[in-house]
Amino acid sequence: MALIVQKFGGSSVKDRDHLFRVAHIIDDTRRAGNDVVVVVSAQGDTTDELLAKVAEITCNPSPRELDMLLSTGEQSTIALLTMALHAMGCPAVSLTGWQAGFWTDQAYTKARITRMDGARLSRELARNRVVVVAGFQGLNEQGNITTLGRGGSDTSAVAIAAALHADHCQIYTDVEGIYTADPRKVPRARKLKEISVDEMLELATMGSQVLNSRSVELTKKYNVELEVLSSLHPEKGTVVKETAQAMEEIPIKGVTKDLHISVITLLNLPDAPDTCFQVFRLLAENDISVDMILQSPGRQERADLRFTVAAADEAQAVKLLRENAACYGGTGAVKVDPSCAKVSIVGAGVQAHSGVAVKLFEALSRCNISVKMITTSEIKVSMILHKRDADLAVRAIHDSFIEE
Amino acid sequence: MALIVQKFGGSSVKDRDHLFRVAHIIDDTRRAGNDVVVVVSAQGDTTDELLAKVAEITCNPSPRELDMLLSTGEQSTIALLTMALHAMGCPAVSLTGWQAGFWTDQAYTKARITRMDGARLSRELARNRVVVVAGFQGLNEQGNITTLGRGGSDTSAVAIAAALHADHCQIYTDVEGIYTADPRKVPRARKLKEISVDEMLELATMGSQVLNSRSVELTKKYNVELEVLSSLHPEKGTVVKETAQAMEEIPIKGVTKDLHISVITLLNLPDAPDTCFQVFRLLAENDISVDMILQSPGRQERADLRFTVAAADEAQAVKLLRENAACYGGTGAVKVDPSCAKVSIVGAGVQAHSGVAVKLFEALSRCNISVKMITTSEIKVSMILHKRDADLAVRAIHDSFIEE
Repeated sequence: MALIVQKFGGSSVKDRDHLFRVAHIIDDTRRAGNDVVVVVSAQGDTTDELLAKVAEITCNPSPRELDMLLSTGEQSTIALLTMALHAMGCPAVSLTGWQAGFWTDQAYTKARITRMDGARLSRELARNRVVVVAGFQGLNEQGNITTLGRGGSDTSAVAIAAALHADHCQIYTDVEGIYTADPRKVPRARKLKEISVDEMLELATMGSQVLNSRSVELTKKYNVELEVLSSLHPEKGTVVKETAQAMEEIPIKGVTKDLHISVITLLNLPDAPDTCFQVFRLLAENDISVDMILQSPGRQERADLRFTVAAADEAQAVKLLRENAACYGGTGAVKVDPSCAKVSIVGAGVQAHSGVAVKLFEALSRCNISVKMITTSEIKVSMILHKRDADLAVRAIHDSFIEE
Repeated sequence: MALIVQKFGGSSVKDRDHLFRVAHIIDDTRRAGNDVVVVVSAQGDTTDELLAKVAEITCNPSPRELDMLLSTGEQSTIALLTMALHAMGCPAVSLTGWQAGFWTDQAYTKARITRMDGARLSRELARNRVVVVAGFQGLNEQGNITTLGRGGSDTSAVAIAAALHADHCQIYTDVEGIYTADPRKVPRARKLKEISVDEMLELATMGSQVLNSRSVELTKKYNVELEVLSSLHPEKGTVVKETAQAMEEIPIKGVTKDLHISVITLLNLPDAPDTCFQVFRLLAENDISVDMILQSPGRQERADLRFTVAAADEAQAVKLLRENAACYGGTGAVKVDPSCAKVSIVGAGVQAHSGVAVKLFEALSRCNISVKMITTSEIKVSMILHKRDADLAVRAIHDSFIEE
């Protein structure tokens, strides 16, 4: 008997028929002799509907109240899915995030899990029931409901798998696994049988929509074996493992794009040792993640600092940087370029194959695409280019690295 | 400075405009120098919409899961109303039932409040905020969400008023106060300025839709001063007081009808001392309330027992009584009459005026209405008659007791 955590996203539970389809997958898993914990998101368009109600009231909602509101979405799903399981004769019980033991920090709308208390989950499993848990949500030390932000339900599932030492963590989604590129945009994209956690981490960070980077980080930290598969066609998906077998000789595992970024430039910063530290501390203290960083020499011992943030954080980042220019020695001049996209290639082959950069620029120049920024790591290369070029760049790179 | 508890029902918060209207009432109360705790229900048709989703899945939902689902309704309202208050510059914070300290028993869908822990409420008030609480819901000792059943939000409001020793508890509704009869059915119905708690209790029990009997019971127990008023026209409503002034010389305070009852008859019970005790213990243990009771002599030391239950409890009551006939010495023969309605007149005058019964039967016989059962108390007379006669009976009695 194994303990299996199964996560189903909003589109997999959007209506009655989808709920029963999911309930069948769960029931089959249990009948095969497994303990099952299920994590679900809000149904289909629920979150958008709730946000539309908010928009009627205010354009600046309190993050705490937003979490109070949005967390009702998953709470509805867990009750309805549990009823569907009961209707099929499958013993089950639903738990909200706080009932399931998710403790988080205070960062409303993008909280991080600080502690996972699996006691109640274990107790319910011991009663031989499927436990249906509301993903995406937790409770902070003040007793207030928080949400985990984008991809939060994946994170919830992996956290449960880690806390309970589950044998498998299955992420059901509307695609059939991890592809070398978005199959809707790149028709010849291939499904991967396996991918290493590091590669998946880079893919996730780089804007692949399938798995959220935070959940992959947790996978790595707690050595959880993850599988991504489709709730419509639950045949084999893609397994994410600590070290993937090199059977498939594809040096590049994927090409991704991310349109939701902004490039911020701070001009004429003092060339002092702690300038960057002060800038990034300011942002980190306000829960704003910085991705690509490029420092370029300026004139007369002053330098320019350029970096990317998620588009959703842009307004807050700019406000902070303008209001606190003194603390990092800036002039308050903050330039923003929202027309950028990030395209990345990921794979253990990046490191091994010295010709990657050449091939990359060759592919892009053939399409007349210019690159604004570039950064590299052991298993990835990321480029900032104009939004309008993003799809073309993905196809060109996929063409020359994967399809050839 | 006073502490005021204000409760707004689902129709008072059904959309953006209603939310802001309510927010204005709250903000005005706060600006007048008062501490305010607000209790709200689910918006408009939310509960019906959720129940429609359940009906697609099962006709026999788990009560625990039903409460998990339905409690999301008020949770949405508290977040949206708090956002509206913020938008008006009024400091406010929302609390779910469990955050507000409502502890209940285990009776899902009709739980009773066992304990009210006002610590968090007091803490939030001390921070000079309006506290917006989800009515209708609480938490049982197992850590599961419960709902309080029909009229539960009124009960929540009175419980908070009692726990915090509030100066006033205002129940805002879509009528302007307590009337001598339903003004939609009896055009000459009068609004009462005051009513005693006992009279209100009888009116509420007897099916007056304005206030739920459980909230009135709590009002009496904790000596809370209650006012019923309209959120559309918040001029003076009706005050419910321990002892109402007798200024208004109306011996009868109201005439009500209740269509949601069933008359159950047990035939040929043994004429033993504990028969009734066993019957009513069986029902009480299953949280079924019995209202009017009539024992009539049968033949050969056997008697018939007739009583009324809420229509919603009928099926369960009949099942229990059939399956457990042995425990009360019955034959298993259980007759049900769902065609009945209950019409009641309430008022301190019932006791004082000996001619009440005569006048009552005179009014009914003039309309050719026959009465199937009748019970009396110090301040009320209740009659069971056919559903089709209920409206006519209410008008006839109102005519002869109040309008004359």
